[in-house]
Amino acid sequence: MNDAAFDEDITSAATLAEPGEVGLVEPRDFTSAAPFRCDDGRTLPGFTLRYETYGRLNPAADNAVLVCHALSGDHHCAGIHSLADKKPGWWNNLIGPGKAVDTNHHFVVCANVLGGCQGSTGPLSPDPATGRPYGITFPAVTIRDMVRSQKLLLDHLGVRRLRCVLGGSMGGMQALQWGIEYPDYCDKVLAMATTAREGAQAIAFNEVGRQAILQDPEWNQGNYPKGGGPRVGLAIARMMAHITYLSDASMDRKFGRRTVKSNTPAAPSSPEDAALSGMMGDEGSASAPAAAFDVNFEVQSYLRYQGKSFINRFDANTYLYITRAIDGFDLAAAHGGTLEQAFAPVRGETLVVGFTSDWLFPPEQNRAIVLALQRAGKRASYAELTTDLGHDSFLLESPELYALVSSFLERTD
Amino acid sequence: MNDAAFDEDITSAATLAEPGEVGLVEPRDFTSAAPFRCDDGRTLPGFTLRYETYGRLNPAADNAVLVCHALSGDHHCAGIHSLADKKPGWWNNLIGPGKAVDTNHHFVVCANVLGGCQGSTGPLSPDPATGRPYGITFPAVTIRDMVRSQKLLLDHLGVRRLRCVLGGSMGGMQALQWGIEYPDYCDKVLAMATTAREGAQAIAFNEVGRQAILQDPEWNQGNYPKGGGPRVGLAIARMMAHITYLSDASMDRKFGRRTVKSNTPAAPSSPEDAALSGMMGDEGSASAPAAAFDVNFEVQSYLRYQGKSFINRFDANTYLYITRAIDGFDLAAAHGGTLEQAFAPVRGETLVVGFTSDWLFPPEQNRAIVLALQRAGKRASYAELTTDLGHDSFLLESPELYALVSSFLERTD
Repeated sequence: MNDAAFDEDITSAATLAEPGEVGLVEPRDFTSAAPFRCDDGRTLPGFTLRYETYGRLNPAADNAVLVCHALSGDHHCAGIHSLADKKPGWWNNLIGPGKAVDTNHHFVVCANVLGGCQGSTGPLSPDPATGRPYGITFPAVTIRDMVRSQKLLLDHLGVRRLRCVLGGSMGGMQALQWGIEYPDYCDKVLAMATTAREGAQAIAFNEVGRQAILQDPEWNQGNYPKGGGPRVGLAIARMMAHITYLSDASMDRKFGRRTVKSNTPAAPSSPEDAALSGMMGDEGSASAPAAAFDVNFEVQSYLRYQGKSFINRFDANTYLYITRAIDGFDLAAAHGGTLEQAFAPVRGETLVVGFTSDWLFPPEQNRAIVLALQRAGKRASYAELTTDLGHDSFLLESPELYALVSSFLERTD
Repeated sequence: MNDAAFDEDITSAATLAEPGEVGLVEPRDFTSAAPFRCDDGRTLPGFTLRYETYGRLNPAADNAVLVCHALSGDHHCAGIHSLADKKPGWWNNLIGPGKAVDTNHHFVVCANVLGGCQGSTGPLSPDPATGRPYGITFPAVTIRDMVRSQKLLLDHLGVRRLRCVLGGSMGGMQALQWGIEYPDYCDKVLAMATTAREGAQAIAFNEVGRQAILQDPEWNQGNYPKGGGPRVGLAIARMMAHITYLSDASMDRKFGRRTVKSNTPAAPSSPEDAALSGMMGDEGSASAPAAAFDVNFEVQSYLRYQGKSFINRFDANTYLYITRAIDGFDLAAAHGGTLEQAFAPVRGETLVVGFTSDWLFPPEQNRAIVLALQRAGKRASYAELTTDLGHDSFLLESPELYALVSSFLERTD
């Protein structure tokens, strides 16, 4: 099976550059030279955030919308980087001129999180003190650290206040943290498919992913060259995590028990792909003993593709750091003991969107956020969308979701 | 945290030897010297099944109950092997004098499956042709192969017909296969927490577990000494699978976000435990870099314990073989295309039990079995037990389940 078959979002670049689309965008770097003290007590001598913006900041500097990304996301949430790009940013369906997050009205900002590996300072970045990558000497960043670093970026951009901060999954955690950390700065908070408190099952899945990385001999205690390291462990972590982003029903519809033709290996597109293909026991390596347990079901092939493509764009130490930040997220515990107490400072309006088939952060966890906000006397509402597409629903095409987001953003009291 | 804290089923041996208990039992080996042709077309020159029996076969030889075990189970489903045993067989709560499967009335048989690693012939066994372990040259056993080998054991024991064949999870698959394969031999079939067709999500989880094993350098293409091999990969596979046996709710109740005291490492009980403890980044190894991502939440510690204890009793190649057998299970596809056609030969009565919080083989998959049996004109009923304990519910204490099993077994038309 050709790997490209799994890239469902491929659109022609021409289409992506047309009116109604964000079009060509260029990432930029913001560097804060001031020491940044992280929640774990350690201090970064400074940091860089890679970010993108779409639309224009108005003269009052109050039309900004901050988009926060999830575990494996980055700053590139809309538009394309070149006309050769086959895929736009990860939330391009939601963001653009005339879209739910309307770049004709809003100045949209999205940054790769602190601790990330897509241009922002993280374990891959050189420690100025040694000239070598931080690796696991990087501070144990928290969701709050991510938020506080984003505030410095917005100050730098001249944003006076946020019309809205929004995100799904870990992006939703950041949005909720924003509402608590900078209550006078956030008009609206929009969190989707998220939780105020990472639960035991979600921690357990992250723990297995981390063990797959930590136990890979190539991890080498976090010291490895960029692009190298525990690629097998990272691929396994991603394969497992990917299952938690889908649903039983959507996987059954998408793959069922269909098998792949095992005698038509896709031509690997690079020598590295060929090596990985062998490594992951793919169709090209049918002579290896592992082939006895080789791809048979489409879903196996799909997962291996997900694992392989992930290791080409993600760093294993960042995966360790960000999953630990997620596991550490517990608003109630961090702010006085109850969620009502945690939300006491909130001033803006909050919308939380849950998805019926999301079993990673199920509807009840999303509902609990709104219940606590309401008990704390805050303006908050909950919307639940019926879908069988699982946790990833917030990323997928959904006119219902677009309408919710659009009316929440545009409404003025 | 002391590992023993996780062994919840520890009972005093004295109690387990009392009346009302199966008491001391001894495993035996049955060896079939005749060539056994597997579903993949390959032939074993012969095979051994390790098994246990409880109760007595009656003169009519028609009071036998066959118990089929799940992926990680074995032939030791009731009683103890010595007075020093701290844990009884895995279904001891269900089986015994006066219990739901009453050994005063029934002759209970349970065998380690073909392909297993607890005494039955499998990848660990020496291939008579070479004198070396089969490893991955072992035939690709199926659920049907397991069933057909069990039939030879029952013939050997003089069992004329089965009062009932029962099992949960993969044991339920075997029970269903028994009803189709030997319809005149099975009075009753009792399948729990199972499916007639392994779905995409369940295949996906098995695939990740297999990759963790196959990518472990110690797997060495299936060639490793007994007790060695891809212990890390197997532990990771088990940790992940274990999550699918529980439920979000039960994990939250059992562990929540409780943390463990990291400065009180349990004394390892053997040098090997000490090595593993280091390998899995446990409390004892806090100086290693991996300790930066070390056990914090109780659920992490629990999963590592599950992983570690599994690799001391299970074989990685068997894990590959048995998960492949499970993934290959699709009664409809194997018997004419529809489940009704598959069940056409069935003559006995079938009871299927689903558990509301089982998300590995959810209630609808259990219900679908009964629906198809009824459409095929068979005597079949479905019972659904409300529990929040997940897939493992069939193994846990449940007076409701005991009553269902007992009345199904004892009832005569």
